[in-house]
Amino acid sequence: MTEFGIRASFLDFIDDPWRHVGRESEAARFHADGLLVVEDGRIIDFGAHDEVAARHAGLAVTTISDRLVLPGFIDGHVHFPQTRVIGAFGEHLLPWLEKWVFPEEIKFSDRAYAREAAGRFFDSLVASGTTTCQAFTTTASAATEELFDEAARRNMRLIAGLTGIDRLAPDGYSLSAENFYRDSKRLIERYHRQGRGLYAITPRNAHVCTPDTMAAAERLKREHPDCWVNTHLAETTGECEDMRELYPDSADYVAVYEKYGLVGPKFSGGHGVWLSDDEFDRLSAGGGAITFCPCSNLFLGSGLFRLGRATDPAHRVRLSFGSDVGGGNRLSMLNVLDEAYKVGMMNNGMLDDPAEAERNKLSAYRGFWSITLGGAEGLYIDDLVGNFAPGKEADFVVLDCNGGPQALRWRQSLIAQNGTPATLEQAADLLFGLMVAGDDRAIEQTWAMGRQVYLRPGST
Amino acid sequence: MTEFGIRASFLDFIDDPWRHVGRESEAARFHADGLLVVEDGRIIDFGAHDEVAARHAGLAVTTISDRLVLPGFIDGHVHFPQTRVIGAFGEHLLPWLEKWVFPEEIKFSDRAYAREAAGRFFDSLVASGTTTCQAFTTTASAATEELFDEAARRNMRLIAGLTGIDRLAPDGYSLSAENFYRDSKRLIERYHRQGRGLYAITPRNAHVCTPDTMAAAERLKREHPDCWVNTHLAETTGECEDMRELYPDSADYVAVYEKYGLVGPKFSGGHGVWLSDDEFDRLSAGGGAITFCPCSNLFLGSGLFRLGRATDPAHRVRLSFGSDVGGGNRLSMLNVLDEAYKVGMMNNGMLDDPAEAERNKLSAYRGFWSITLGGAEGLYIDDLVGNFAPGKEADFVVLDCNGGPQALRWRQSLIAQNGTPATLEQAADLLFGLMVAGDDRAIEQTWAMGRQVYLRPGST
Repeated sequence: MTEFGIRASFLDFIDDPWRHVGRESEAARFHADGLLVVEDGRIIDFGAHDEVAARHAGLAVTTISDRLVLPGFIDGHVHFPQTRVIGAFGEHLLPWLEKWVFPEEIKFSDRAYAREAAGRFFDSLVASGTTTCQAFTTTASAATEELFDEAARRNMRLIAGLTGIDRLAPDGYSLSAENFYRDSKRLIERYHRQGRGLYAITPRNAHVCTPDTMAAAERLKREHPDCWVNTHLAETTGECEDMRELYPDSADYVAVYEKYGLVGPKFSGGHGVWLSDDEFDRLSAGGGAITFCPCSNLFLGSGLFRLGRATDPAHRVRLSFGSDVGGGNRLSMLNVLDEAYKVGMMNNGMLDDPAEAERNKLSAYRGFWSITLGGAEGLYIDDLVGNFAPGKEADFVVLDCNGGPQALRWRQSLIAQNGTPATLEQAADLLFGLMVAGDDRAIEQTWAMGRQVYLRPGST
Repeated sequence: MTEFGIRASFLDFIDDPWRHVGRESEAARFHADGLLVVEDGRIIDFGAHDEVAARHAGLAVTTISDRLVLPGFIDGHVHFPQTRVIGAFGEHLLPWLEKWVFPEEIKFSDRAYAREAAGRFFDSLVASGTTTCQAFTTTASAATEELFDEAARRNMRLIAGLTGIDRLAPDGYSLSAENFYRDSKRLIERYHRQGRGLYAITPRNAHVCTPDTMAAAERLKREHPDCWVNTHLAETTGECEDMRELYPDSADYVAVYEKYGLVGPKFSGGHGVWLSDDEFDRLSAGGGAITFCPCSNLFLGSGLFRLGRATDPAHRVRLSFGSDVGGGNRLSMLNVLDEAYKVGMMNNGMLDDPAEAERNKLSAYRGFWSITLGGAEGLYIDDLVGNFAPGKEADFVVLDCNGGPQALRWRQSLIAQNGTPATLEQAADLLFGLMVAGDDRAIEQTWAMGRQVYLRPGST
């Protein structure tokens, strides 16, 4: 049994800020002088320092000054094998896949390459403050195995799965429905709920999977109902048009996933840019989630996600936010929040509904909730991570609120000295600065399961 | 007479890449092993090392390895007194001005505050690789003077001017037309063409200036035809609607500036998001320029600038690119290129004209041309800066092509080892990586007028 405490300023969330319009701070907790007590990687106590300390005599405490500690960030949609083709030039979704993405992903059938990539992938995640991700892999079992194995070595929480595709893929990359079923099954048995690994049945996208592969995904989910389901959904208009021809008996895009029994808790559809109101409503009712990937939606020119529609309390859809690297051009969830804010504001340039417009405004409360507790709810892992509730796993980031381009520091000094907030409102103002004018330089430390997995170069 | 050489890899532009569709590299020059010769702050020779070195026996040469040297970046539209309110939350243009911007700008009538701000402003510019900017100030002469004085101390090229406003401004901030004329006149005499300073007659915006102030601007331009004119233009739909009421005798927004004799060479209208085809055509014919500010247009939700329309060779409009800090949330022109790329791609999600869609794609050639030679042409200072042509001022940046988030390095290694390009195509691929997946960490050194004005911490 190893037990220790971290004394610092803490901010986390206990509720969805979109449920507290005009009083969003009610969804957050802030302790200017807080104490987090960790035992064997899990949080066992948390609160105001003096109160908590009184319950833990003799606790070994590390004090962190001039920093703000948040739960680790959650990236709900990222392509592990696209780490190296981040920021590829010039194409919309389908030609981009063909020209840049598939040639790189094919390399991941080479186990040595996949292993090197997995190391670099997690190195970049933790340098960005991301402690949990839901990741796509490739059609190669080796790629999927190396990702899970690297996560296990680092004791990082991971949702991932072999990524099926048997349409519009190059020779040698496609995976038959039969082999998708067989390989997924084997990987589920090997990795699901082993350590911090969770398996997601991952048909890449109904648009690039035949009905046979979709049926294989259905069978896998029926046989392993505890598994997650991760895929893409309504990313571009072109893809949505194709879907009508490919699945003529399904009324819309969501209906295809419904047909194969995949929509429900633990289902994530990446993007959801071009969903109808009716599809939003059915996702809401069924418990399926959307992953909002603003960097990617802007970088590939896919469209503006209707954030204010998805968060309508009458039909609230669960959301996680994703970097969607390599469609997204930055791995840092801070940059994802920057672009998410812009998507909301751009929506509002064209919108007359004041209530929806209000919901499109991504405050720091909404933003940081979305990449911590909200993301955990979107992925149905909020029993495990997302805030500092006792019982959860001790994943957290230590933020330097002055970390970013040179211009940031003077901006933050308008709010608080040394980037150290005295109140929740100051903390939120500093965090908004980090979202839109800071970057991964703000990540001083990243901790996973109670262990430091990243320390910013030059920090001590 | 001080003379020295820099031996390094160089990339600059000799023409507009939009004039070379499909063969953009023809607009660029690359020397893997080049030599730049500087005398008294000006470039006196440039080219392949061996050729140039033969002409300069005994030259003191500094060799810079594993870096790429470009002309200094040009920011065509930035608000000096908004440096500290960068990334302010939650409002579209007009309420944002009222809530965040004016209270900060008012502080700049305090000379000590303005002086401190000017130091911080240039510190941040050079750390971003920006060597020339066209800046707004405030209605206070002190703010304008401190900005010019600080630029002079650093020998940096600056276009700026007292920024007139006498509508929709808070008490104590408005400047009467008479005083705008009087103070501008005095400042023109003091600063225009003094050292590297150039004066821009700066009515903030026809929307926030009365016809009297516009008439004062007209008179100033008539009396000082060598001066620049800097203002805002068609940023938001709401503002454009108001303009019809304010200037009922002008057919459109550009017509207002035409009426007061301001549109022509050295005129910059910031934004131009909501211009009609006819307005684009008249700007093109008249020689007026638009400053494209994508960070700001997304951050404030103003709209998508029609880049492919502005660059139509049939009606080419001069452009510079601007950060528009504080409406823009990042001062780095690399980030401006990231968002400019996204604006182009988002336009193309809604556009059926293939030629215009092609022009919306911001390649590295187009991007880096736009913030160097293209920006200089947009601002009518291409006789002074913008590339390495002998006679121009020696403003340049030394780029570390691996500078940015951790994920960047592996991406760049797909193109070239150590971030050092061997060919122009490799250089362009690396630069695209910097645009969309790098940031100001790529700026290792910034030089102005042949003198190093910035060295990245930790570099030697």
